Order: sequence, then C-alpha cells, then structure tokens
Amino acid sequence: MVNEFYMLLAINEAWKYQGLTYPNPAVGCVVADKNGAILSVAAHKKANFAHAELEAAREALAKLNPLLKFPQNPNELHAFILQNHQNLLKDSTFYVTLEPCSHQGLTPSCAKLLCALHVKKVVIGIRDNTKQAKGGSEILKKADIEVVVGVCEKECEELIEPFLLWQKGSFSFFKLAMRLDGSYDNGIITSIESRKFTHKLRDVCDLIVIGGETLRNDKPTLDSRLISAKAPNVLICTQKTINKDAPLFGVKNRNVIIQNSLDFPKEYKNIMIEGGGNFLQAMRDRVDWFLIFHSNSFSSEKKQSVNIDLNLKLIYSSHIGDDLFGWYRRY
Amino acid sequence: MVNEFYMLLAINEAWKYQGLTYPNPAVGCVVADKNGAILSVAAHKKANFAHAELEAAREALAKLNPLLKFPQNPNELHAFILQNHQNLLKDSTFYVTLEPCSHQGLTPSCAKLLCALHVKKVVIGIRDNTKQAKGGSEILKKADIEVVVGVCEKECEELIEPFLLWQKGSFSFFKLAMRLDGSYDNGIITSIESRKFTHKLRDVCDLIVIGGETLRNDKPTLDSRLISAKAPNVLICTQKTINKDAPLFGVKNRNVIIQNSLDFPKEYKNIMIEGGGNFLQAMRDRVDWFLIFHSNSFSSEKKQSVNIDLNLKLIYSSHIGDDLFGWYRRY
Repeated sequence: MVNEFYMLLAINEAWKYQGLTYPNPAVGCVVADKNGAILSVAAHKKANFAHAELEAAREALAKLNPLLKFPQNPNELHAFILQNHQNLLKDSTFYVTLEPCSHQGLTPSCAKLLCALHVKKVVIGIRDNTKQAKGGSEILKKADIEVVVGVCEKECEELIEPFLLWQKGSFSFFKLAMRLDGSYDNGIITSIESRKFTHKLRDVCDLIVIGGETLRNDKPTLDSRLISAKAPNVLICTQKTINKDAPLFGVKNRNVIIQNSLDFPKEYKNIMIEGGGNFLQAMRDRVDWFLIFHSNSFSSEKKQSVNIDLNLKLIYSSHIGDDLFGWYRRY
Repeated sequence: MVNEFYMLLAINEAWKYQGLTYPNPAVGCVVADKNGAILSVAAHKKANFAHAELEAAREALAKLNPLLKFPQNPNELHAFILQNHQNLLKDSTFYVTLEPCSHQGLTPSCAKLLCALHVKKVVIGIRDNTKQAKGGSEILKKADIEVVVGVCEKECEELIEPFLLWQKGSFSFFKLAMRLDGSYDNGIITSIESRKFTHKLRDVCDLIVIGGETLRNDKPTLDSRLISAKAPNVLICTQKTINKDAPLFGVKNRNVIIQNSLDFPKEYKNIMIEGGGNFLQAMRDRVDWFLIFHSNSFSSEKKQSVNIDLNLKLIYSSHIGDDLFGWYRRY
C-alpha cells in the first residue's frame, strides 16, 4: 500500500491518546517489514511511557520473537531492545507521524534507536522543529536510512497542535458532555468509560477551569478518582462570592484560584475547561479546542441545553463505549 | 498481524456503505499477499456493483499491474479478472466479512473466483446461510484453499443485520439530524456531504415514512436530487386530513400512501423513517436501527429538540465532513 495508508493508521492510533501525552506530543507509529506487512501499530500513550517508535519496535519484536520478555520502564526497554533486537527489524519501514527525536530526553534518541535497528526507511509525517528534538532525519540519513518527509503532513500537524501550543505558551480545551438530545444537567451524562477518559485528561492537565454556575449547581470534586490519579489545581471564574462547601475544596495538595477575570494564569500550560452552555459562551474565543461528548440517551426530564451560536470544525471523531465524541476547533 | 487486524479493516470499510447495498449485505474485503502485506481494502458499494471480493481483487491487481485496464461492469470485470490475473494473487489471503457466495446471481460466484485466483487462504467473518449463496466455504475447501471461519463473528453479524432482516421481511431505520446542541428545525441542519449521503439512502430504500408534523412543517420533497437519483415511495402516517401542497406530491413515478396506522405496508423491505422527536417517540419500538447525525453548529434560534426517554446502543460511529453520525439500535 502507499505511504498514506500506513501513515493514516499511525495517525488514528495517536489520536486515541490525544490530550493524555502532555507535555509530549501525540505521536503514532506503524512498523512494516521489508515486504510491507504490518508488524505493529503503536502510539505514545503518556509522558514517561515509551515514545511511539520505541513502543512500535517493542510490539513488532514481540510479534517476531514471542519469547522476548520486555521490561516496562522505557529506558530499560530502550536498552533491552538495543541488546536483543537480533536484527529482526532490519530492512523494516517505520511510519511515524512526527520526526523521530534526535536527543536524549527522559528517554534516549528514537532516531538513534532506528539506526541501531538497521531499518531501511523512515516515513515521517511532519518535521519536529523543537530546539531539543530536531535533527532526527539527519541522524537517520547519515546512517544510510531512506527518509521520506511530509506524508499526510496536514493531518500530522493537526495531531500535534496542542504540543505546538504548549511550546509557545499554553493549550486549552473546553470539555462539554451532552445527551443525544443535547441536554445536560448536574447528574451523570456519559458512560463510565468516557468519565474515566475525562479523569485521565484531568490527571494530565495542570489546571481545570470552571465557572461559578458549575460550582453552585454541580458542587464538583474535579479529581481523577476513577483512575486513582492526581487532582489538578482549579480556577473558578466567578463574579459572585462563593461558598466553599463544594468537595473540590477538600482535595489535598490542590490550589484553588478564584478570580473574576476569564484570563488563564500564565504559569499553566495544559488547561482543561469544564462547563455548560453559559461558560462555553464565555470561553468560546479563549480556548483552542473543544472536546464534545454525546451520550447514548435521550431524556425527557427537565434539563439544560446549550443556547449559543457557534460553528466548529471537526478535527477527529471516535467513540468510547456507546458515547460519541469529537475534537473540534473554531472555524 | 493477526486475522482480527485485517478483518477489522474489512469491517470498517464495509460500514462506509451501510444502508447503500440493499438488497445485498454490506460486505468488506481485505487482500494480503503471501507475506501479509495488504494489497487492497475494499467493500461492496451498491447492488449491481462488484461484490467485495471482486472489488478487492480488482484493486489488488491494479496495484500489482498498473497497466491493467479494468472494465466497469461487474460481470465483465469478473470475466476480465479470470482472463488477466496472471496468477498475481496466487498464495494471497482474502479476509471477507461474509462467506463468499457460491452461486451465480447478478454476478458469478465469488468462491469460484477465489479458486481461479489460486488464493492460499480465505478468512471469513460469518457464514452466509442464505439458501442461494451458502456453500462458498465448501467450494473453497474442495480447491484446497485453507478456510478460517468466525473471525470477528459478532461484529460481522452486526454488519449484516439489515440484510438478515430483509431476508426475513423488512429492515427499517429512523434517521434524525440535529445540531451539536440537539436542536433541529425545518431548515438545513447538516453539511452538503451528509445530505448527499442521506439522498443515497433515499435512492436505495423503497419507502420513506414521515409523520403529518414533518409534512406540515417542512413541506419536504423527499427525493434524491442531490445525487440525481430516484425518489422512493412515501408513507405519511397521520390522523389529520392533509393538504397535498408539499413538493413530495409532485414527484413523478412515486406512490404516496396516507394512513393513520403506524404499521409499514408488508410489500416494502428497506424502509427509511425521517422525522423529529415526536415521530421518533411514535416509531421508537417499530424500527430496527437509528441513524443519528450531529452537525457542527450550536444555534441560539428558537428551535425544537427531542424530548423523550430512550437509551440506544451504538453500533458504529463515524463522520462525514464536520458532521458526526452513529448507527444505533435499542438496548
């Protein structure tokens, strides 16, 4: 198949972890053997986990030699693969949405890993222009590896837009959950699987922003209890005096900022905004992306719905269990 | 990769044409060469078009020999491939969501085609138990082709549920289009691409069902003008006297049935119901599936929304342009 076919599989895999990789970019990687048979479809899942190329190499090697017992820790995994790859990935092709990193960060250079594996070709979606990581292509070329750059470039750029914005300052997204009929209230809307995904997003973001209305109506906790992970700091944007009886105030190791301005404090880089229609209207021109869930139910009970004018551009859609969701940006 | 990987690609491709293949089932097919490299990912697109296996064979051969000029007509294509395959697909594996047909229908037997191509293995999602088509596996086995049955069987059965219902009597689905906020009205809701898809569905169904409210509010035409195709017959379910000034009455070669019962006339097999919340409530227990679109916009204008209690099970989700959509059934 053509390069685009493999790259789209890599892009799609990376999107599954969008929002969870901070401060790293979402990256996907497909490995095909010398005949073009796919050996693995992998992605970077979270900071301190293996980069996409390392994870893809692991999965491909696991397929080719089921006896290999891989360590979990990405640094140990990197070292293990360098020692035990047995040239099984010689002449393979790696399709990576983002140029393999040149540098030793938390984990060693992916470009150098691919050189050591003696891969034949690396097909890259978009160049990594960050100061530390750039130059992977040059490392590959020096090792006589064929490098193709710019396959599905637009899609790969979209995939790392949050990362590009973190580099420049901050990335923010507004999360909204509705029933199939557009209704929402302060009860549970989406499935446990979708709420776990939301808690993963909360675990990874460094600030959750809500409005006074959400505080008063929902009395939320805004933690990541469904996945036993960290509760981020909270910014409450309100012009009214607030009652500190909501459970969010009782969460340990959390700062709660209360202000009447809608500006995000400068020190936060990965910002998640949660709310309903009124806060969406207030924040619509301040956020970068929108994450919108539609559950699988219609409800006739008294309820709220979003009542604003806004056109969005769909970037990616998928589902979690019975819930649809889409990542959007403004048109 | 494992059989399931290829089969899921075939299933996903088939879903793109769900609702458009009547009276045939939606079927997907992936061809991999002897090394496991994917040569094609194809689907049956419409009755009188090539079956999935024939289309997949065509696309695979086109890749292997770009000089081949394939005829359009599926019968001619079948004959052409038998003459010109040059054993290029020898030892390949076909992953098909539904057992290849044994019989000569509008097109010749797909099982016999695969025998003539000397494929090595055929991996099948679910057996075809229809009287005419069944027995494909036996034909393949007699030709010493390895046959694996039951890979992703549940998903493959879901894919052909409309077909299984056509066999038994009829299949019906309720199509609903809403904005992101759940609102709808008698204006345009979704993108031109989604509306073209809806017109394709109308072209293929043999009956559109609406309620009196839709007739009065929307004054619809209910044809397939966006794709210059046929306008199906219309059933209007209403208890009131109706005014025949809506454009749908002016469409040539169309029967319009008006009745106060909600029962579908027995002679129709592929039935599309269109409407809003009230008609959804009336029809919810009479239809097999639900096709729900969410456009990319929120609107503050005075509008309607669905106000019923209903939980649905998501079967498949995707997007057309900026619109999300899901195929659902009742829980």
